[in-house]
Amino acid sequence: MQALIKPGVGPGLELVEADVPKIGRGECLVKVEAASICGTDLHIYQWDDWARSRLKPPLVVGHEFAGRVVEVGEGVSGVAEGDYVAGEGHLFCGRCYYCRTGMAHICERGQIIGVDTDGCFAEYIRMPAVNLWKLDEDVPPEVGAIHDPLGNAVHTVMTAGVSGARVAVIGCGPIGLCAVAVAKRAGAAAVFGVDVNPYRRSLAQRMGADAVLSAGADDNPVGRLRELTRGLGADVVLEMSGHPDGIDTGLDMLRKGGRMVFLGLPPGPVKLDLTEKVIFKEARLFGVNGRRLFETWYQMSELLRTGLDVTPVITHRFALADFEQAFAALMEGRCGKIVLQP
Amino acid sequence: MQALIKPGVGPGLELVEADVPKIGRGECLVKVEAASICGTDLHIYQWDDWARSRLKPPLVVGHEFAGRVVEVGEGVSGVAEGDYVAGEGHLFCGRCYYCRTGMAHICERGQIIGVDTDGCFAEYIRMPAVNLWKLDEDVPPEVGAIHDPLGNAVHTVMTAGVSGARVAVIGCGPIGLCAVAVAKRAGAAAVFGVDVNPYRRSLAQRMGADAVLSAGADDNPVGRLRELTRGLGADVVLEMSGHPDGIDTGLDMLRKGGRMVFLGLPPGPVKLDLTEKVIFKEARLFGVNGRRLFETWYQMSELLRTGLDVTPVITHRFALADFEQAFAALMEGRCGKIVLQP
Amino acid sequence: MQALIKPGVGPGLELVEADVPKIGRGECLVKVEAASICGTDLHIYQWDDWARSRLKPPLVVGHEFAGRVVEVGEGVSGVAEGDYVAGEGHLFCGRCYYCRTGMAHICERGQIIGVDTDGCFAEYIRMPAVNLWKLDEDVPPEVGAIHDPLGNAVHTVMTAGVSGARVAVIGCGPIGLCAVAVAKRAGAAAVFGVDVNPYRRSLAQRMGADAVLSAGADDNPVGRLRELTRGLGADVVLEMSGHPDGIDTGLDMLRKGGRMVFLGLPPGPVKLDLTEKVIFKEARLFGVNGRRLFETWYQMSELLRTGLDVTPVITHRFALADFEQAFAALMEGRCGKIVLQP
Amino acid sequence: MQALIKPGVGPGLELVEADVPKIGRGECLVKVEAASICGTDLHIYQWDDWARSRLKPPLVVGHEFAGRVVEVGEGVSGVAEGDYVAGEGHLFCGRCYYCRTGMAHICERGQIIGVDTDGCFAEYIRMPAVNLWKLDEDVPPEVGAIHDPLGNAVHTVMTAGVSGARVAVIGCGPIGLCAVAVAKRAGAAAVFGVDVNPYRRSLAQRMGADAVLSAGADDNPVGRLRELTRGLGADVVLEMSGHPDGIDTGLDMLRKGGRMVFLGLPPGPVKLDLTEKVIFKEARLFGVNGRRLFETWYQMSELLRTGLDVTPVITHRFALADFEQAFAALMEGRCGKIVLQP
Repeated sequence: MQALIKPGVGPGLELVEADVPKIGRGECLVKVEAASICGTDLHIYQWDDWARSRLKPPLVVGHEFAGRVVEVGEGVSGVAEGDYVAGEGHLFCGRCYYCRTGMAHICERGQIIGVDTDGCFAEYIRMPAVNLWKLDEDVPPEVGAIHDPLGNAVHTVMTAGVSGARVAVIGCGPIGLCAVAVAKRAGAAAVFGVDVNPYRRSLAQRMGADAVLSAGADDNPVGRLRELTRGLGADVVLEMSGHPDGIDTGLDMLRKGGRMVFLGLPPGPVKLDLTEKVIFKEARLFGVNGRRLFETWYQMSELLRTGLDVTPVITHRFALADFEQAFAALMEGRCGKIVLQP
Repeated sequence: MQALIKPGVGPGLELVEADVPKIGRGECLVKVEAASICGTDLHIYQWDDWARSRLKPPLVVGHEFAGRVVEVGEGVSGVAEGDYVAGEGHLFCGRCYYCRTGMAHICERGQIIGVDTDGCFAEYIRMPAVNLWKLDEDVPPEVGAIHDPLGNAVHTVMTAGVSGARVAVIGCGPIGLCAVAVAKRAGAAAVFGVDVNPYRRSLAQRMGADAVLSAGADDNPVGRLRELTRGLGADVVLEMSGHPDGIDTGLDMLRKGGRMVFLGLPPGPVKLDLTEKVIFKEARLFGVNGRRLFETWYQMSELLRTGLDVTPVITHRFALADFEQAFAALMEGRCGKIVLQP
Repeated sequence: MQALIKPGVGPGLELVEADVPKIGRGECLVKVEAASICGTDLHIYQWDDWARSRLKPPLVVGHEFAGRVVEVGEGVSGVAEGDYVAGEGHLFCGRCYYCRTGMAHICERGQIIGVDTDGCFAEYIRMPAVNLWKLDEDVPPEVGAIHDPLGNAVHTVMTAGVSGARVAVIGCGPIGLCAVAVAKRAGAAAVFGVDVNPYRRSLAQRMGADAVLSAGADDNPVGRLRELTRGLGADVVLEMSGHPDGIDTGLDMLRKGGRMVFLGLPPGPVKLDLTEKVIFKEARLFGVNGRRLFETWYQMSELLRTGLDVTPVITHRFALADFEQAFAALMEGRCGKIVLQP
Repeated sequence: MQALIKPGVGPGLELVEADVPKIGRGECLVKVEAASICGTDLHIYQWDDWARSRLKPPLVVGHEFAGRVVEVGEGVSGVAEGDYVAGEGHLFCGRCYYCRTGMAHICERGQIIGVDTDGCFAEYIRMPAVNLWKLDEDVPPEVGAIHDPLGNAVHTVMTAGVSGARVAVIGCGPIGLCAVAVAKRAGAAAVFGVDVNPYRRSLAQRMGADAVLSAGADDNPVGRLRELTRGLGADVVLEMSGHPDGIDTGLDMLRKGGRMVFLGLPPGPVKLDLTEKVIFKEARLFGVNGRRLFETWYQMSELLRTGLDVTPVITHRFALADFEQAFAALMEGRCGKIVLQP
């Protein structure tokens, strides 16, 4: 089969001919119909510090996909050949404190496909059956492929609790854009998309933002947000940028007693004015990681069945062989989610 | 001024000429622009057991209204002459455990206007300033008038938590109808209106219900609900009927671990199969009373500003002098909310 | 091996010689060191309506035990020969909505050992490895044996949330007695044990109750409770009696806005005054079933390691062969928990 | 009367003869029986940047006290002459969003006695009646005086939720020491006191800590904590130090999915590794400010009535006239809480 791999230490990826994976007990083989590129994949492509410290090449990359089960291993129940599925990319041990108390998504021995084990930028992928999520047949493969990042957005929104709330989304990259749409669908009174990039702000509007705020130094997004919330500030801030300025802006936008959820990953330590912006405010801050297994997936599927539309976030599609073009588009930045078709 | 009063013990009401109330410290005088009739008012009109035990005539009835402040007492701050307001009908002591811990709506010494003190079916009403809620000028008086029952619906929905949930609303009287619209706006995945009355079911559809279920003996609404929820049942049930059959149907519709909120008032004790329908199911049941002071009011105003439309629930309007026609329409049952104009 | 079985339809049990169970993939064989008798076992002994409708004899009864792993099946990880363990008696499917969202204890296809499959009143029991809980070596086998019912108490207390609360425990049978001790250890301001039976009230005192209240018709336990709580009532009521009078007393003891958890199983439908005692009060009622898998077990072990002492609840010990005496003691009622030693 | 004032800009305080305050509507005059010194008072004494920017001398300082009501203003209900009271030092407007939704402790226009208005280091203090809390007559005045900081500890502990949890308290100054005792009483499985100062660690032990950990650079408190928690880490961290190292240590001690509450005020921005220590961990962080009005006060009184003993935290007592000695002791650091007697 064709597979996109990190062949060894250093930047870049390579499309190679590889053996179709052999499955073991409790596993399934899935024919990939669509896969999508995550920021993580770009880190791997660019071979940054994180990638260097974590990856052990050679390795098939990619962790976001949808496809069809073509082979079922021994001892599998609940998944059958022919099932149309998306994959939960976080592997879990099933035996640690977190796995045994409904928090497998933060398993002590958690691994990620396409990072720690072979991934999905290939014609076939081997997956533990428990990591497969059956999709409705009317979900397009490219929407199935982005279930993993959409799940991040759903988990973020549900952790915050947005019913009736004024919600600021800081950072309108693909997951931030999904969060805009999810927050609207999940009952936010109003959703405000905040980004420095006008292309992304316009996508935020297409995803349903009630207003978009430019986050440039001269734009006073905090003042604008306050006007839009009758002086009070945001009840909820979803931090999807991972940028120190975005985090600071988010804390400034948050009203006293408000809830702020952190999903964007700052590349280094961040200076926070805890006294004025967290403690005196009685702010509540929540880190989120991945998606709840599988509560988030149930919520996501239900929202998609009942009106959530995330298709505007998918802006580019490429054949797997054209991966260089896909990564170039991603680096250029004028894009939402990019889908690869093996 | 004209005032609709319960003149003495026994059924019926009487329109009389009365003195405009004199206000004291901390109070305001409000010129009533619209008032609406509650089921409670019908109990008072009909002089049932509850009314007999609670009311001390003569008394101006009515507790749902909107109007304009025409006089402001000493020591009032935050409310001014000319303010356009709705009234919170629950009076509270401010000193008990509940009042001092943010639960004034269940004050130990709580009283209700139009039940324990003179109410709003009159040209003017005297109100504690702290019970007035400033309305946006673009809210029609008749919508302002129904803020009190709409607040019941908002409190019920927010107590349940409906973001992403499948919600069954049992009983589509005026508050149930409001709950349908509020649950949709507050992010329910789907809302199912359940009632025996086809007129009310059609109103539920106009309020935004995704499906309506007939609750007749031969209609198998529980089975229908299960089909509509992929076999699981409702995540949330809002019990707005107060009818033993409605309560039982609601418990049957509820999935394991689900949340059921009770607002409808059964006239007597109700037999519940606690073992099978509550304990084995790990059901969570919540009684709700009135509206949270004033969290619910903030939520309600925000939802109304951002797309919540409850106007279809207002089906009839009468001059105060035509109150007999209004009560006749209410007893006849083919109505949503009925508004009186003094 | 020796095993206590329900040989066929009808009352009574029989001690027989049976084959040691053969284990399969994912299973372990456990040598039982101590087992304890549950009310459920008494229903089975007496062959009441519930037992008749549920059991398919012949069957080894009993579901509360501790022992040592003597054989480990294929594919088991995390449990080893020689491990000292207690057993979670609720079997779960691992694939339904509940199992996949951290609520396996209310699995759609849940079964119970000693009820639906062979149980623990025997020298050996076959168990799925995932249902075994490793005990610290310093836990006596008889305390290990009662982990299952103690877990019910822990789950009940943790569902209620008792930190700083005044807690009434209605019904001081074995699980109620455990709940008294757990609520104290978990930070209740005060715990009040309520029972009609003086023997049980005296056990409640030994378990740490701050006061015990006689629940007889002339005893006015509600008035007494109110005196003990400065007129307010209980913040939390734990309903462990399953008796309609106990439930009604509990609702009367509960303050407005309070939390009441139901574990005791009423044998039939119960009449509740929902209007006055739940809705006007904004009471919050929670059904609980079994124990959370395995959050409750972690909590329970931690509490036992840090001062929780439940040994006074164990009042009788019998050899397995003397089971008739054990059941006689249970029926007589002057007992806490009864332990059988195979 | 004698009063300890900040006479003008600059360091130091002065004991002066002042007029007994005149009370207005809704106010009471309280004869101070005991007052205690807060870190805030030291900032004022030392005239640091914060004090310089906030205070407008001359001003009577001090905000922690207990005493007896000697005069009651017009319109006061619920407080009478002769009542024995402590004072809530946070003044609130009663009209803002926070005040109207049960969060008066974070009032938009909040002020603090002894900082923004005349305080309690005097023979008499004028207080709004709603800010007085009736004490049981058996509470010693010096314990009454420290209700305000004890309330901080109670609010911190209750925000975290400690029932059955392993709790690390970072920073064993007076509020941290109170938090140790409150967390134990509120049901923590174990409480670990962490401080660099051996005197404070020994006080933490007297307050009931299960273990104390030295936080010096070579002490590896994180490793020690992990050993004490079976490798998992703390379920709950209470950050009472306000020191960047303390905050970092706390984040390292926190298990995945754990809760960390921030009360200690860092003097400047703090660098946090959000990615590894908050986001990947799904940590939940809560700022707390003051005490909930008046839920915290009810909880505190109830805990004091039922076994909470905070007297070991009071280590020094001085006459008001000896205030220089008191502040010297505070600066020297070998102290818990210091009480002044006017």
